[in-house]
Amino acid sequence: MATKLVIAIVQDKDASRLSDVFIDNDVRATKLSTTGGFLQSGNTTFMIGIEEERVQEVLELIKKASHTREEYMTPSVNMDVNMEGTTSYPIKVQVGGATVLVLPVDQFERF
Amino acid sequence: MATKLVIAIVQDKDASRLSDVFIDNDVRATKLSTTGGFLQSGNTTFMIGIEEERVQEVLELIKKASHTREEYMTPSVNMDVNMEGTTSYPIKVQVGGATVLVLPVDQFERF
Amino acid sequence: MATKLVIAIVQDKDASRLSDVFIDNDVRATKLSTTGGFLQSGNTTFMIGIEEERVQEVLELIKKASHTREEYMTPSVNMDVNMEGTTSYPIKVQVGGATVLVLPVDQFERF
Ligand code: NI
Ligand code: NI
Ligand code: NI
Repeated sequence: MATKLVIAIVQDKDASRLSDVFIDNDVRATKLSTTGGFLQSGNTTFMIGIEEERVQEVLELIKKASHTREEYMTPSVNMDVNMEGTTSYPIKVQVGGATVLVLPVDQFERF
Repeated sequence: MATKLVIAIVQDKDASRLSDVFIDNDVRATKLSTTGGFLQSGNTTFMIGIEEERVQEVLELIKKASHTREEYMTPSVNMDVNMEGTTSYPIKVQVGGATVLVLPVDQFERF
Repeated sequence: MATKLVIAIVQDKDASRLSDVFIDNDVRATKLSTTGGFLQSGNTTFMIGIEEERVQEVLELIKKASHTREEYMTPSVNMDVNMEGTTSYPIKVQVGGATVLVLPVDQFERF
């Protein structure tokens, strides 16, 4: 049974949902404190040592919980500037996104 | 001389002893701040770049310093609840444990 | 197109310059909080998932921004101890240094 190391970098906003998903699916993940880089905003890195047979399942879980998607956000408007009753329109923003690396493992031990 | 990357995840309570063991044995380890995951309680991740010939030695050091073992713990008893002189019996708890991955390395440089 | 994972451990004092260099050269790096180990003083670990063709370029950037070099430092002198006008001579100190590992990657995904 070969083991692989899955390293997943996701946005902070998706990290706790992904943690829950891993627990529900009996995937043991270690969370690293990380900053900047791969993704625009704050991010979290997960390390998962997993049997080769389960790698695709883990990738599907990560994709489902943290893929790039669009959300509508209503920007805050400074009402002091304009007395003519400016309406603040919701704008589309891109959120989420995951970068995932699957690495070969020579040896895996539990002591 | 091939290099390997050893990633070891141990309980926080074993981390400082393991750091000492690495220093005493001239093993250079980098400590990552990690949370949750592989092991039940708080954990610490070490990364060690090491010559292939020393991998088994490093695994032995990790095993010795942080393997799973049982300890007796005396639970604290709330004496207010019971005036009949409750005796608090020590209970067995499992502590320690390490998850270790050995990864192949293509290139190793010091600048 | 094969991907590699570059792990670079540099001194904290070189970390922000190296972050800038990565951004200027369109290299996406994730910064990990790390302590002790490979290098004498505080250090920072970068993880970079990169196409095999760009690995040497990334190594050059790391080398240039954080290689070992000597700097002159003037030690602070307590003037109260000696009224004879002690001159504080600058001394040479070694700073910087990077430890870099290049790891093979089986699969690389962006979701
Ligand atoms: Ni979706
Ligand atoms: Ni023992
Ligand atoms: Ni130079």
